[in-house]
Amino acid sequence: MTDLLSGREYAARLRERTAAEAARLAASGTPPRLAVVTATADESSAWYVRSIARAAEKCGIHCDIADLGPRATPADIGARLAGLSADHATHGIILQTPLPPGASAQELAAEIAVAKDVDGANPLSLGRLAAGLPAFAPATAEAVVAVLDAHGIEVAGRRVAVVGRSTVVGKPAALLLLDRDATVTVAHSRTQDLAALTGAADIVVAAAGCPGLITADHIRPGAILVDVGTNPTPDGGLTGDIDAASVDGRAAALTPVPGGVGPVTTALLLQHTVRAAAEANGAA
Amino acid sequence: MTDLLSGREYAARLRERTAAEAARLAASGTPPRLAVVTATADESSAWYVRSIARAAEKCGIHCDIADLGPRATPADIGARLAGLSADHATHGIILQTPLPPGASAQELAAEIAVAKDVDGANPLSLGRLAAGLPAFAPATAEAVVAVLDAHGIEVAGRRVAVVGRSTVVGKPAALLLLDRDATVTVAHSRTQDLAALTGAADIVVAAAGCPGLITADHIRPGAILVDVGTNPTPDGGLTGDIDAASVDGRAAALTPVPGGVGPVTTALLLQHTVRAAAEANGAA
Repeated sequence: MTDLLSGREYAARLRERTAAEAARLAASGTPPRLAVVTATADESSAWYVRSIARAAEKCGIHCDIADLGPRATPADIGARLAGLSADHATHGIILQTPLPPGASAQELAAEIAVAKDVDGANPLSLGRLAAGLPAFAPATAEAVVAVLDAHGIEVAGRRVAVVGRSTVVGKPAALLLLDRDATVTVAHSRTQDLAALTGAADIVVAAAGCPGLITADHIRPGAILVDVGTNPTPDGGLTGDIDAASVDGRAAALTPVPGGVGPVTTALLLQHTVRAAAEANGAA
Repeated sequence: MTDLLSGREYAARLRERTAAEAARLAASGTPPRLAVVTATADESSAWYVRSIARAAEKCGIHCDIADLGPRATPADIGARLAGLSADHATHGIILQTPLPPGASAQELAAEIAVAKDVDGANPLSLGRLAAGLPAFAPATAEAVVAVLDAHGIEVAGRRVAVVGRSTVVGKPAALLLLDRDATVTVAHSRTQDLAALTGAADIVVAAAGCPGLITADHIRPGAILVDVGTNPTPDGGLTGDIDAASVDGRAAALTPVPGGVGPVTTALLLQHTVRAAAEANGAA
């Protein structure tokens, strides 16, 4: 009864358009190029970086992985980001987390040129977003809106509860939804009576990083649920912040994990990179 | 029955502390200096700028009014802001609105150095605020939280409805309240059933610019109301977004207009300027 709002088909269409634009740019002398800066021995991070690199290459976007290693200092990382920001051949820059102890992703991301900040990590990008100025949004936050759009779900005038207030997902998703005329509530770990709050919402966006946090008790019948959680399971899989079995039959629709917000996020990162390359090409 | 949450006493205490710090800085060779850039023939704007200048001088802060006139171009305004940002003797910069047609306050405010952006107008300041990094918040948004603090009203864990989503008040107030662990809903002109939404909140912050928008029907008994509205009345006075007569006896507390958020806003602008001067003095 509960529709699955897959992100795969939309992501595939987006990648197709991105690949066509990448080919056009390459032919006109601006082959799109993405750089991922990483400084960790974390295995799941390495896996994610390789998956982005593969997805990029499939779209005709060259992907450079700048692996500075887990002993990189904040100065090393900042210098590399500044160098890539100044490099005319690089169009998109991603700073991968986690970073070594003492390195702040927020502070370092300020070194990423806003025009190349394809994952909206620079605080200036976030501020421009909040101020309604052009900027790249964090891809995951944008994917929340995009997956709803892809399934023709209107957010204007509807009550949306965003569970989670992170700088990379909760806050920017709230800003994007607000910009689309949703009435947005941001809930978090200090929220009292979460179930009453999410239960009053037409659309619930779960971005708390708590496996199975949202159950049937947290939602109204017919609610639309977007699951941003990507929590590792003991068997090496992923599980979301929404208990899919519990909400089944009560929710009108749910984005699956995996296969919902995730593939759209990656496709948007690549689309942003090609947009950045197109702007660089237009400016040249 | 409804307590009036005056901002005047707190503002007076804040100005006193600010004046003491300004005197200390002047004695140590860094007399605090605020610049207000204006480019309008608007009379109420001119009145407001003069009132800031008077309040600043009373605190021992020198205030320069850079009146570029209503024919100033965006380039003129940007150049002046950049010049003041580079001027070591200037510690705080305010860009007064309205601006001439074609000039975007958001875009121009990017020319204000973040360290001198005492009214949090630069999108980078807003982004740093959203990312939890040090930055000056827009003074009006900060005054909302400060007036609640001044009266010992706890916001953590409480449901707060912010009515209005402007870049200068609604959004930054929501971010500040979220940072203080409130569960925050942002409502606006496209919100459906505003009364149900504000009626579910413990604290309602009215920042919509609509005189008398919030009435007894919009609030729960015992609600705490913060009125950010400053709507001119035909007789030359000011009226808020909350219908004070209507909510009287039903709300637990209400900030008056005038005399609530307003005086705190001005006092915070001056405090920010002295903080900026102290940092410049410390860095010198």
